[in-house]
Amino acid sequence: MSVFTAAADQSLCAPLPVLGKDVTVPLVTGGEVSYAALDYAASAPALQRVWDDVAAYAPYYGSVHRGAGYLSQLSTDLFENSRATVAEFLGCRAGDQVIFTRSTTDSLNLLAAVVPADCQVFVYETEHHASLLPWRDARVTYLNAPRTPAQAVEMLERALAERDPYGPALVCVTGASNVTGELWPVKELAAAAHAHGARIVLDAAQLAPHHPVDIAELDVDWVAFSGHKLYAPFGSGVLAGRADWLQEAEPYLAGGGASRKVARRTDGGVDVEWHSTAARHEAGSPNVIGVYSIAAACKALTEAGFDNLVAREQYLVDAVRTGLAEVPEVKVLSLFGDDAPRVGVISFVVEGWNSSHFAAALSAEYGIGVRDGLFCAHPLVRTLLGSDPQEVGECGAPEAEPGERSLNAIRVSFGAGTPDEHIERFVRAVKELVSEGAQWKYRTEDGRCVPDRGAAQL
Amino acid sequence: MSVFTAAADQSLCAPLPVLGKDVTVPLVTGGEVSYAALDYAASAPALQRVWDDVAAYAPYYGSVHRGAGYLSQLSTDLFENSRATVAEFLGCRAGDQVIFTRSTTDSLNLLAAVVPADCQVFVYETEHHASLLPWRDARVTYLNAPRTPAQAVEMLERALAERDPYGPALVCVTGASNVTGELWPVKELAAAAHAHGARIVLDAAQLAPHHPVDIAELDVDWVAFSGHKLYAPFGSGVLAGRADWLQEAEPYLAGGGASRKVARRTDGGVDVEWHSTAARHEAGSPNVIGVYSIAAACKALTEAGFDNLVAREQYLVDAVRTGLAEVPEVKVLSLFGDDAPRVGVISFVVEGWNSSHFAAALSAEYGIGVRDGLFCAHPLVRTLLGSDPQEVGECGAPEAEPGERSLNAIRVSFGAGTPDEHIERFVRAVKELVSEGAQWKYRTEDGRCVPDRGAAQL
Repeated sequence: MSVFTAAADQSLCAPLPVLGKDVTVPLVTGGEVSYAALDYAASAPALQRVWDDVAAYAPYYGSVHRGAGYLSQLSTDLFENSRATVAEFLGCRAGDQVIFTRSTTDSLNLLAAVVPADCQVFVYETEHHASLLPWRDARVTYLNAPRTPAQAVEMLERALAERDPYGPALVCVTGASNVTGELWPVKELAAAAHAHGARIVLDAAQLAPHHPVDIAELDVDWVAFSGHKLYAPFGSGVLAGRADWLQEAEPYLAGGGASRKVARRTDGGVDVEWHSTAARHEAGSPNVIGVYSIAAACKALTEAGFDNLVAREQYLVDAVRTGLAEVPEVKVLSLFGDDAPRVGVISFVVEGWNSSHFAAALSAEYGIGVRDGLFCAHPLVRTLLGSDPQEVGECGAPEAEPGERSLNAIRVSFGAGTPDEHIERFVRAVKELVSEGAQWKYRTEDGRCVPDRGAAQL
Repeated sequence: MSVFTAAADQSLCAPLPVLGKDVTVPLVTGGEVSYAALDYAASAPALQRVWDDVAAYAPYYGSVHRGAGYLSQLSTDLFENSRATVAEFLGCRAGDQVIFTRSTTDSLNLLAAVVPADCQVFVYETEHHASLLPWRDARVTYLNAPRTPAQAVEMLERALAERDPYGPALVCVTGASNVTGELWPVKELAAAAHAHGARIVLDAAQLAPHHPVDIAELDVDWVAFSGHKLYAPFGSGVLAGRADWLQEAEPYLAGGGASRKVARRTDGGVDVEWHSTAARHEAGSPNVIGVYSIAAACKALTEAGFDNLVAREQYLVDAVRTGLAEVPEVKVLSLFGDDAPRVGVISFVVEGWNSSHFAAALSAEYGIGVRDGLFCAHPLVRTLLGSDPQEVGECGAPEAEPGERSLNAIRVSFGAGTPDEHIERFVRAVKELVSEGAQWKYRTEDGRCVPDRGAAQL
């Protein structure tokens, strides 16, 4: 029985073609099956359109910014036009700058490097480590996990109002949780931040691939996102927003491209004059293909009609949630409750199951790729699972033994390239695994959970 | 008349196939011509083999390190195998670590971030800005330009011996100059550094694409290079070498992947336990395609026979130098003199010519892409041109007016993909431009030197 209704299906757009949609993978139970990539929240497949654009450009690749040749000038135009495309995609304001980085993590580390020396940073414990950890030189106030969007706003307002001294402040908040997929009240948080003389950066790593992001409409000061979650896995990311802090600070990377003039001083030292444009923070030869791929993805999503993609994704979200709700052993993780709007990122645990084994069985017996672990958001997952801080697992290691209660969770995530069949297969697989058990045993080997080839098939 | 002899040609390997070799570009003088990419020192075209490997992998792309799915595990293996391939390519010692970065600039900024607090850095003024500028928190001693390799060693020995206090020290030196292409006496400098209790990092950005680099044989502590100069322009670079400083320092980027455990403390703060592997400095989702492309390039160069490529490149170097020597108006820039060994990177000025106009004419009238400017090595180019430090030009701006003496230079650079015809065309073009002048006028517009369409054709 399908988890979808035929009526709903027909009103929706088709999934966008992505690379890998025809890849088949072997099953331990025999045979091969098309791979169901359901780990979009970690990294999404490239849109076919993005790949085609990259492939068409690649023979024309040339050094940018100072090359005198035709391909250098073409590549420079393509690079700077990509910046303009991203600015348009994000609805940037006049004066905003788009800086190309390697990822959201890099973007937030860049912002952390330019916050004023006396800036206090406010961040919820529910954030991804990329938002939680980069503020090394700043005083950081960690806010507890709110249980409603309204409570998130209240908590922030209180913390900002009570800050002492009442100096420069920055709020860092996700647009959509990388664990629960739940949307955060970004516009309200931005209003609260500004009302209290603070600035706000939006971690849009999980939002931008699933929802239009308008920097001016949300009234956030900066937005950060990654190409590899936006169907453009070529090693680039973006930090876009207010130029002032960026241009008042030292360059993020020191080197060529960021430096306008360098000269020895008579005392033997070196004088440097840095650029005061985006180049200030983009030293070294830029990743032109990575940057172009992001612009190609922005164009492809816009041209497909982002509203259509949102509608289709919501239909997939509903199907997963409806399917999981029919399995009493499954507990979906949520901060804001069942009615909270969310993107195609859903985490859960299964009673009586080690999450790593469950994820391994989904892969080995159904060809479904999900993720198990703590999703680089340890405090949040601990809070959601009710674990003790001291028993929190670690990144990069599956759970060794099934316990009474799993310390890891399973995350399924999807997006513009996901066909109905992947979602149907996933829901069916969860139901079968829970009701009938896995066909193989699984064990941890070299930091991975794998089918136990030494044990007899069950 | 060819600049090559038929006899020499037959003993050499063919150029390796690269992307863009069949691209044609329009000429202002009418018609189209195949593009001669002679700006390899800035960015080399992708090897066809590298592109093919990337294209074959792209449909199998998946999130690395924590994904439970088949493609995630395949991608993780490919990522970590790429690390092993690079270690082998560089001849890494047991215990060395290979860290993937975005570029040489990024690699050297990473190293700068991990040098001990009391470390003194020694760097020649002749270095690229990426080597000259990142040592922000360290005390830096800039060494004057040596005029022989032996003098370089003597200067370093003296400076290291006289350092006060005689504490931790790091020498940063290029393997091949990005301006003159001249090889530096890396092994001798490494011996000098170690004899004086210092460490040494090799900037191999311009060496690795042209010569085998063996970290153990050279006895350097670290090597840095970029994929985009090594025929793999997908946004990745490498820092390889000693693990101790890297693992004793704070992570370069803070975020997921670098963090092993994160937990709220009872006082409201956050405790972080960082990884003590390469992952410590690779926070965020890695650029898997970029990393794989570097490994693919390492394999392709090794399989082609690096010695064959060196022999072929030297033949091209000789042809360019012989050709330019026949034009009295051309002055080739050199620190170490005519007999110094060098890679396929040659800079020059032409008497009576504005270098930007000369480079623009090479592009517009011959379809040849070179670079004009100061090559992100302002002090070196100033020294070589005999300019005053105050009249040094700036990056990103062509010379506005031809002067009595150019403040910019022209750089021609090539490598494994360069066919004889590009070199023949370049030498012929230089001779024709010098003897007959350009057919068009050129002017500066929007920061570029372009054919002056407002002026009548000459």
